[in-house]
Amino acid sequence: MGSTTARIAIDAMGGDYAPDEIVAGALRAKEELDAQILLVGDPEQIEQSISKHTRSHQLEIVPSEGVIAMDEEPLVALRRKKKASISVAMNLVKQDRADAVVSAGHSGAAMAAALLRLGRLPGIDRPAIGAVFPTLMANKSVLILDVGANVDCRPQFLEQFALMGTVYSQYVLGVDGPKVGLLNIGEESCKGNDLAIRTHELLQNNPLVPFIGNAEGRDVLSGQYDVIVCDGFAGNVLLKFAEAVGSVMLQIVREELPQGIRGQVGAAILKPNLRRIKQRLDHAEHGGALLLGVAGICIISHGSAQAPTIFNAIRMAKDAVDNHVLDRLKGQYQKTLAGLGTTQLDSPSEG
Amino acid sequence: MGSTTARIAIDAMGGDYAPDEIVAGALRAKEELDAQILLVGDPEQIEQSISKHTRSHQLEIVPSEGVIAMDEEPLVALRRKKKASISVAMNLVKQDRADAVVSAGHSGAAMAAALLRLGRLPGIDRPAIGAVFPTLMANKSVLILDVGANVDCRPQFLEQFALMGTVYSQYVLGVDGPKVGLLNIGEESCKGNDLAIRTHELLQNNPLVPFIGNAEGRDVLSGQYDVIVCDGFAGNVLLKFAEAVGSVMLQIVREELPQGIRGQVGAAILKPNLRRIKQRLDHAEHGGALLLGVAGICIISHGSAQAPTIFNAIRMAKDAVDNHVLDRLKGQYQKTLAGLGTTQLDSPSEG
Repeated sequence: MGSTTARIAIDAMGGDYAPDEIVAGALRAKEELDAQILLVGDPEQIEQSISKHTRSHQLEIVPSEGVIAMDEEPLVALRRKKKASISVAMNLVKQDRADAVVSAGHSGAAMAAALLRLGRLPGIDRPAIGAVFPTLMANKSVLILDVGANVDCRPQFLEQFALMGTVYSQYVLGVDGPKVGLLNIGEESCKGNDLAIRTHELLQNNPLVPFIGNAEGRDVLSGQYDVIVCDGFAGNVLLKFAEAVGSVMLQIVREELPQGIRGQVGAAILKPNLRRIKQRLDHAEHGGALLLGVAGICIISHGSAQAPTIFNAIRMAKDAVDNHVLDRLKGQYQKTLAGLGTTQLDSPSEG
Repeated sequence: MGSTTARIAIDAMGGDYAPDEIVAGALRAKEELDAQILLVGDPEQIEQSISKHTRSHQLEIVPSEGVIAMDEEPLVALRRKKKASISVAMNLVKQDRADAVVSAGHSGAAMAAALLRLGRLPGIDRPAIGAVFPTLMANKSVLILDVGANVDCRPQFLEQFALMGTVYSQYVLGVDGPKVGLLNIGEESCKGNDLAIRTHELLQNNPLVPFIGNAEGRDVLSGQYDVIVCDGFAGNVLLKFAEAVGSVMLQIVREELPQGIRGQVGAAILKPNLRRIKQRLDHAEHGGALLLGVAGICIISHGSAQAPTIFNAIRMAKDAVDNHVLDRLKGQYQKTLAGLGTTQLDSPSEG
């Protein structure tokens, strides 16, 4: 723990706009946030990207060789490219030279590298990817997990997601008394598929989970829930659908607004407001998803992330470090394992 | 078959606004569409609703007793209330006094009544509920099934959904050469949960399914796919999320647009355009979901359906009847059972 400056390792080579946009986001983070930044990647390329913005900088460059491409099978690629940027970044955390990793590269590879280099937290069978969605209530967001790490889940996995989500919501997102929901297709406890029905029972009986009931698709963005747990298949579909639906809505607004003379005049007057709408819907504001359950803090950013998204991802990582999320997660699990929860009953170590 | 006027039985007692709004929608349908309308329900209440609009009408009233309430367990309630409006409506189809049923009542009860009274089509293990979503492309929609009838699915169920969806898309939605996608979390055939991976293989090897590959959450509304199949859990979450997200976006637009003087002036000028946007996003335009796979045409409308939605639901039912959807579905299955598809291999009759 300690209250020293957060040290964030950034995979400078991962993502569609690497290294230029990654470096630009890192430079801004160094300027605006109190954090130590370690850029992992090809030193020559990184220096070149930096030189486009500034002559002097306070970023540390950690050399790596190669990068895992988007179409590579994670485990195979990680074995072959031992010095790939994502592996080197994870190693920095393992060696206690960094507190967190941010990557916009291959998300499967980031997860595999985290598991291989850092391992899982005690009591966690499967790490989950959590994504923060905006809600109908201003300044209120909802953490949804898992959004893609585990496509076939057991009820205990979802119970663990609920515990991790609660800690993250409370200590990083700053929610006082977070409320947890289970993604489902009806309000009643008897509703849902086999996984949902069995998970409902676990959540209801775990005193460490502030469970308030099932959340239907229509409730996800209502603001009633701070954390919603689901399997990685449903969560991933929801995440990608939500991102796309924002664009669909904006396109409809753009197509419809400027129709007719009234529309053209109105739209011209409203331009700054439309820009603000776009900003509010824009997922770039969110930075990235969190990998929860590994023994380190990892933020997985969009493959299409540009500087503002990277900046936000770094800020998320710093918040997680500053709020001692990892230690709190471990503490939560000590409580659970001490018998307050049900997780230890029949959770397999591999499944 | 034959090309006589479609006969639509309407559950006048089901839904939050029954019977008034149901009757209003039926009156409009009788006026605008070439269809015979049978209103099933309490004759006195129906007459009273009709009298609010007109003195003379050409609707046939078929008496029933009672209605299945939203919180009742379908099978229990149907057994107890043998003359409930939804049962009587389904019986009209069984007795060949009607060609289709429209209901805004308890959707589980509508499905159970259809299964009990009409039975399944040959070759279909599980009926599915299909919903029509708008897409990014103007005048192009996508049929998603299942959106709630089957929460735990086997790959063969999804294969059958694909076959039924193809027929419906082609002959009712008028799509020339419909393209079928599988809801999944990646493009590659190896991606997804166990169900998705196994379904992908079935779809790829069935020559009757015009399968073009996996559809991710972000592709659902792209317009590239005419039919997307998924299990009823993921489909229901998506459906309810999509409905809600429309309201969320509209609320953000409404909140943001009138800010500042520029905003207020602009918004005033744009009012008619904003109204048109709302219309385009409004799910009332869509009428209802289809119950596919039972031996009859059934449209399940929203519980909150008012007259315009009911009118659209009746129009959907009429289109399905006029286009001989039921015979085409049966024909498709004869082809499948003749050995072109794989459905017959190991599909259990109950599961």
